[in-house]
Amino acid sequence: MQLFRFGPLGHEQPGVRTAASQHLDVAAFGEDYNEAFFATDGPARLAAWLGPHAGQCPAVPTDARLGSCVARPSKIVCIGLNYRGHGAETGLGAPTEPVFFLKATSALCGPHDDVVLPRGATKLDWEAELAFVIGRKASYVAEADALGHVAGYTVLNDYSERAFQLERGGQWAKGKSADTFAPLGPYLTLPAAVPDPQSLRIWLTVNGEPKQDGTTADMVFSVAKLISYVSQFMTLLPGDVVSTGSPAGTGVGLHPPQYLRAGDAVALGIAGLGEQRQRVAARPG
Amino acid sequence: MQLFRFGPLGHEQPGVRTAASQHLDVAAFGEDYNEAFFATDGPARLAAWLGPHAGQCPAVPTDARLGSCVARPSKIVCIGLNYRGHGAETGLGAPTEPVFFLKATSALCGPHDDVVLPRGATKLDWEAELAFVIGRKASYVAEADALGHVAGYTVLNDYSERAFQLERGGQWAKGKSADTFAPLGPYLTLPAAVPDPQSLRIWLTVNGEPKQDGTTADMVFSVAKLISYVSQFMTLLPGDVVSTGSPAGTGVGLHPPQYLRAGDAVALGIAGLGEQRQRVAARPG
Repeated sequence: MQLFRFGPLGHEQPGVRTAASQHLDVAAFGEDYNEAFFATDGPARLAAWLGPHAGQCPAVPTDARLGSCVARPSKIVCIGLNYRGHGAETGLGAPTEPVFFLKATSALCGPHDDVVLPRGATKLDWEAELAFVIGRKASYVAEADALGHVAGYTVLNDYSERAFQLERGGQWAKGKSADTFAPLGPYLTLPAAVPDPQSLRIWLTVNGEPKQDGTTADMVFSVAKLISYVSQFMTLLPGDVVSTGSPAGTGVGLHPPQYLRAGDAVALGIAGLGEQRQRVAARPG
Repeated sequence: MQLFRFGPLGHEQPGVRTAASQHLDVAAFGEDYNEAFFATDGPARLAAWLGPHAGQCPAVPTDARLGSCVARPSKIVCIGLNYRGHGAETGLGAPTEPVFFLKATSALCGPHDDVVLPRGATKLDWEAELAFVIGRKASYVAEADALGHVAGYTVLNDYSERAFQLERGGQWAKGKSADTFAPLGPYLTLPAAVPDPQSLRIWLTVNGEPKQDGTTADMVFSVAKLISYVSQFMTLLPGDVVSTGSPAGTGVGLHPPQYLRAGDAVALGIAGLGEQRQRVAARPG
């Protein structure tokens, strides 16, 4: 069972992808995939409900828009420089302890939505990332207990405007938070289907050309370590999203750097979790 | 009319302070002070409702706990180094354009709640700030139109653990986001009662000793400029909180630096907006 959300932006309905790859509309379950859902063992309750009800669930139209696979969380925590290759290419090196920042949740969108160039953008960059969603409130969690706080895994493209992020005085959030800068999904894959989050292939292409092709085995800090670490500094709530950093091959690390332009096609994915594709769009009007 | 929220943490009810300083329980209005409330002109609707209903509203018990004056927003944007004095005392100088970061919304609490020392904290610091709440979605707003996007003004103590913020590798959010690090309130004061947000006295004491005593006239960037600026980088949603930076007199800027310890008493306020008081508490257990 994988979770997804479909329908118009801001009006998404919950869906389930079954083991047989059917896409079922589970709006009749009556809950969105939000903090309350995850805080009350929602995935297990949904699976139990689905047993007797799957036969009555309508199929999701194959042309339905997919939304973010979870509803707007209280926060999106992004880990920086968490692959040795990316630290080297940015010139920032590998950190001695995790670097993280917050990305505005208003940036959240569906996995195949256009990424819209902000006004004045000149250095739009991609970052394919393994993200996970918190299933159980996490505060001062020991690393050994950390994976029990994960509700599932998914894909995030941590879009970044590098000039806003690095050249405009201050904190990275400035270049990470524009609308459409956080496509999340397509699916939330439950932990039972991801026996080892540290051995997943992760890749990204631009206009069909390979740019990133790595493995989560190369993370500096593991998923378990990250949960434990971040939970020393803030409380992670059910439904919160943590994105674990990007492997080498981002635009800022190329020689010369390469950034996205209107019309470019970005595709990315993580083995077993699904794929995203975005078109870069100029701002309307 | 000023808005506040009262009751146990996580179960707050809406209240109104009238022009006659009565504190009325307006739970019967049926809405919390959240995104939906602000997005639909909530303060004006509430004022209209109050006309015929104020007589039936119970008084709020004088010993009721006050919560954050607005419900959990999608984001808390904090402006850094926005008073010339504070920029100088931190050695970071005055910025040429606004510096901002995001503070985790899980840090939000009531204006008189204890501030709880995080594990390992050694440099807990205070920052009295003028905060405002967004009343109307703001994206690429012109400075001339900006104040029309403000639902009201309030007080935030932007608690900061300076070692976490500045010495642990990375971004300021790491030292700004612990639980209880964002007491907000007591009141949300509507713009009609704040004719000039750039001429308000702002002060803070520790154990009765004056530490900060400034005026919002000394901001580097005005409220209107900040709304316009931040809205170039992200969309501000109704109910979002923006905090405008702190005047000189923070602990990190003293010679030698001074930080808070368990048992210390912090009080702060802004003329016309209200006062906060927090006790510094050790972590239980």
